[in-house]
Amino acid sequence: MAALRILDAISSPADLKVLNNDELAILAREIRQEIVATTSVTGGHVASSLGAVDIIVALESLLDMPRDRVVFDVGHQAYAHKLLTGRREAFKTLRTYGGISGFTKPHESPYDVHYSGHASDSLSIATGLAKARQLKGTDEKVVALIGDASLAGGMAFEALNYMGNEQLPLVVILNDNEMSISRNVGALMKHLGNIRANSHYREAREGLQAAMEQGGPAARGLLGFGKNMKESLKQMVIPHTMIYESLGIVCTHPVDGHNIAELRDILSLVLEMDGPALVHVVTRKGEGYEPARQDPERFHGTGPYDIATGKAVKKPAKAPSYTEVFGAALADEAARDKDVVAITAAMTGGTGLKDFAAEFPERFVDVGIAEEQAIGMAAGLASGGKKPVVALYSTFMQRAVDQLIIDCALLDANVVFAFDRAGLVGDDGPTHHGVFDMVYSRMVPNVRVLAPSDEAELVHALHTALSLPGPVTLRYPRGEAEGACLPDAPELLEVGRARVVREGGDAALLAFGRMVGCARAAADLLAAEGIECRVVDMRWVKPLDEDTIAAAAATRLVVTVEEGVVTGGAGQGVLEVLARQGSQVPAVTLGIPDHFVGQGPVGRLFADLGLDAEGIAATVRTKLAAAR
Amino acid sequence: MAALRILDAISSPADLKVLNNDELAILAREIRQEIVATTSVTGGHVASSLGAVDIIVALESLLDMPRDRVVFDVGHQAYAHKLLTGRREAFKTLRTYGGISGFTKPHESPYDVHYSGHASDSLSIATGLAKARQLKGTDEKVVALIGDASLAGGMAFEALNYMGNEQLPLVVILNDNEMSISRNVGALMKHLGNIRANSHYREAREGLQAAMEQGGPAARGLLGFGKNMKESLKQMVIPHTMIYESLGIVCTHPVDGHNIAELRDILSLVLEMDGPALVHVVTRKGEGYEPARQDPERFHGTGPYDIATGKAVKKPAKAPSYTEVFGAALADEAARDKDVVAITAAMTGGTGLKDFAAEFPERFVDVGIAEEQAIGMAAGLASGGKKPVVALYSTFMQRAVDQLIIDCALLDANVVFAFDRAGLVGDDGPTHHGVFDMVYSRMVPNVRVLAPSDEAELVHALHTALSLPGPVTLRYPRGEAEGACLPDAPELLEVGRARVVREGGDAALLAFGRMVGCARAAADLLAAEGIECRVVDMRWVKPLDEDTIAAAAATRLVVTVEEGVVTGGAGQGVLEVLARQGSQVPAVTLGIPDHFVGQGPVGRLFADLGLDAEGIAATVRTKLAAAR
Repeated sequence: MAALRILDAISSPADLKVLNNDELAILAREIRQEIVATTSVTGGHVASSLGAVDIIVALESLLDMPRDRVVFDVGHQAYAHKLLTGRREAFKTLRTYGGISGFTKPHESPYDVHYSGHASDSLSIATGLAKARQLKGTDEKVVALIGDASLAGGMAFEALNYMGNEQLPLVVILNDNEMSISRNVGALMKHLGNIRANSHYREAREGLQAAMEQGGPAARGLLGFGKNMKESLKQMVIPHTMIYESLGIVCTHPVDGHNIAELRDILSLVLEMDGPALVHVVTRKGEGYEPARQDPERFHGTGPYDIATGKAVKKPAKAPSYTEVFGAALADEAARDKDVVAITAAMTGGTGLKDFAAEFPERFVDVGIAEEQAIGMAAGLASGGKKPVVALYSTFMQRAVDQLIIDCALLDANVVFAFDRAGLVGDDGPTHHGVFDMVYSRMVPNVRVLAPSDEAELVHALHTALSLPGPVTLRYPRGEAEGACLPDAPELLEVGRARVVREGGDAALLAFGRMVGCARAAADLLAAEGIECRVVDMRWVKPLDEDTIAAAAATRLVVTVEEGVVTGGAGQGVLEVLARQGSQVPAVTLGIPDHFVGQGPVGRLFADLGLDAEGIAATVRTKLAAAR
Repeated sequence: MAALRILDAISSPADLKVLNNDELAILAREIRQEIVATTSVTGGHVASSLGAVDIIVALESLLDMPRDRVVFDVGHQAYAHKLLTGRREAFKTLRTYGGISGFTKPHESPYDVHYSGHASDSLSIATGLAKARQLKGTDEKVVALIGDASLAGGMAFEALNYMGNEQLPLVVILNDNEMSISRNVGALMKHLGNIRANSHYREAREGLQAAMEQGGPAARGLLGFGKNMKESLKQMVIPHTMIYESLGIVCTHPVDGHNIAELRDILSLVLEMDGPALVHVVTRKGEGYEPARQDPERFHGTGPYDIATGKAVKKPAKAPSYTEVFGAALADEAARDKDVVAITAAMTGGTGLKDFAAEFPERFVDVGIAEEQAIGMAAGLASGGKKPVVALYSTFMQRAVDQLIIDCALLDANVVFAFDRAGLVGDDGPTHHGVFDMVYSRMVPNVRVLAPSDEAELVHALHTALSLPGPVTLRYPRGEAEGACLPDAPELLEVGRARVVREGGDAALLAFGRMVGCARAAADLLAAEGIECRVVDMRWVKPLDEDTIAAAAATRLVVTVEEGVVTGGAGQGVLEVLARQGSQVPAVTLGIPDHFVGQGPVGRLFADLGLDAEGIAATVRTKLAAAR
């Protein structure tokens, strides 16, 4: 029988006020147990959430929330925050269809400030909140919690530069856990490592602790609160967080991120400051759950697992993932062509490049959370005669649209863009669905766009992209592929040529990417009713196959099906071709409609959106009836 | 009679090798005269180009070009480079139709590495070139020249972080001229100012000079070249460029950017290094031409001017610019509503916000060259209850598409985006044309998109955008407006409602933004031939007015006209509505075709693209004839 928990008495952060440090530490342990209990069933971001528990407990015990605002950078570290802010019961539905989000979500709770999910944006949002506070003349606290890897993103630097210049009153908590999703990269990380290793660390910490031990009010008097506060603190801190000090931000020495008493001491000091302060907190990913401590990368984002062993509970897969097929195919290409270079941005495992990195370490580049750098560097590599392949998640490529246009397309640079997790991603929800890449790829001159329909097509698409001059983007979904037979050798696809995968004269289904499979299944359903559909694997989003479109117009109905937003997407491109050809055939564009799509199993989401076989068949049925 | 010039004997940088420092200094003067002579006729970026002349002369005298690669950040500082690399005669056609570009342009010269124009990308491209060099095992030099303002952009920080970590062999020349386009912002600038002001500066410089004076090879021996080079240099430099030093980049003391001998000394040292080095060069914008020295902001980008006085040679304007109308309208809104906050990113003058900044200094935010920060901060301000209006050039907003999607639209934040210089911008050419914003705005759920057709409509559009919940983008062109009568008070436009500006039953011209004027003129031409066109000012790119589109389908031809790319644009949106309505009317989508558009007078570019009255009329004539 479970003992009575402190956690069960917490319905909002206000309830933390009555707890002492020992009780808060017990609460932190309970929260960790709850996180493990839930994520072992639902899956989730375990390692980073466990690492941030003590920071969140300490911080929220000191704040007046939701008046005070906490901005979580990449909110998958915020599970403890969810458990403390009235979502203890709902937490069991984490990342499930209709359940609560794995990230902070303002439409879910007034305690959540923004839709977190893309790294490095928290500091910018915090500067806006702090500026609004100044303009309103109010005094709510503004705090941002950001990991060391996110701090390397350019957007975070822009915000630091701004807050330092304006001396905005906000607190940045640097959650320094010495790793991002995979290994850490970047000189900034080395710099932080030097700070941690610095011998002054312990001395200064002991000095601060001594001051603290003189008692709360006494210590405050000693340190000279109010206007002189900042200067006093400056003298206490080690001057080695020099990057931030240079920008005018007061920085603390490294604090033990799993010591609630120490955290509360330092946080209560900096929360009283008038200008920007950075609290350097050192944590361990997975703290409190041994399997996650031992392998934090596997527990970055995991599916269900066995609590005792940490082993993943997996359904046997029928096919490899698109990601695995891509990684192997790219390694094959690199073996054949010494000019192939792979680039990613802190997504080595996620984009299937681990083996590539091991096999061709000198031709593998991980720039860290820095998509702009990834694309700019790719343009430079192409100018230097190399064939860079940038592998990113579709949703994160949104960070580098300008670099695609100006640095790559205008130059007609030989850069291949591999957009992993294109389309709906499932449990991570709207911040992670990759539904815009076809639009922002096809709008750019000189860019060719491929959407392979299965893993065999992906192998051919990559090979084709590498053979073509100029920028080429290719997109493929997250997760298990279609089970297609992988080719012995990759083939060159003819540019702008689709392939008919099923014949039929009543309607033509022009499908892109894995929607080809859905369209075929819809055609099977309709055939049983006597409606014969031609199904086309369009292969190319750009250039579109105009002959195939003309042939489609000879049926009674053209239906385009794509796993991306309809607005500006491939289907609207098909309509433009039809208009140019003078066709009068009825046409429908299926895809992601003009609203953000929630989380849940991809199949369920497809059904909701009318993109599964039943949905597509229903559209064809209705439209053919209307056209009669 | 002009005396014989050194410049006339320079056909490539190789010709610089035979010149001594004194001759190079004379050459620099001649280059300045040539820049002033040409830009006084063509207009151009005068102040920054003059400031960088000595750096470019010194640098290129030391390199083996085009084998060695120089990446110019924002290539409008590269006029001297153009004059030294075989474009002396062509330089007279600077920024003219069919002439040479005002930026570096690889398709123009093998000496140009990339299409510069968007700040902060040079370092990323240089990392790619340096990595390619490593992989090839070659030894060409890689140099990037970047201004202090550009260095504050997040992309530049990402590149510094990467090159420091990887110890890539490249030289960054920081052209520190103490101002960006308008005033400098950001803590980084203050930090650089502190370095300049530091008393150690002169001491260290003198120390280095003393070492130099011992003669080239001798000094090299003294300093211990090769493997120890870096350590030796480290000891010479002032340790106060601490941000870069922290990242593992060797930094020099500040060097006089107008002393060719000093520049050559320090550059020849750092060019031999194995790892990344940053040369801190202090220059004065407009150096060598007094009017530009006195008012570098006016001479940042200028039209033709009188050389003697520096006064602009301007055609009298018939109407105010869209920019001016926007600035005044926003100040009016701010006077009525204390929650309005204006944000820009180093484009205060360019977006018409000077008066706003003076009148409402506390509600004016300039984040520097940092579009991601601008949008992220706007989201935070909106969360804090304010009504931020972000004013940027359309082309630079490409840097913050992800922030529009994730930080603003997903949150449904009350942020207004004012896209200045939307559409074709003229002389600045393809890097500056703002032709993608309608696509990347309309693809995003929750975003409304306005395209006012004249300056009166712009006033109403801004007022309407501020009145609506959720994100709204509005776009308007560069330069002189249409001469419409400005309203006494702004009106609220009905959401998604177009207005018919001319009746006619043969064809319907559905026009967006200033294309309404072109469409009307086309309708006038056609009326003379007996073809009656309805002309619609669509006002809203999103949501589209479906009733008006249905009515248009009752004519014999629908023509959409927009000043943006057709691929994914408003016209394709209209086609989608027509398809959904079951219309079979012939339709044509006019706009920017799928290639990058060059530089030149906007009217000329419109004519080339078939977007002027004649071009639109020709399309209508041809299509109606075909439809008969």
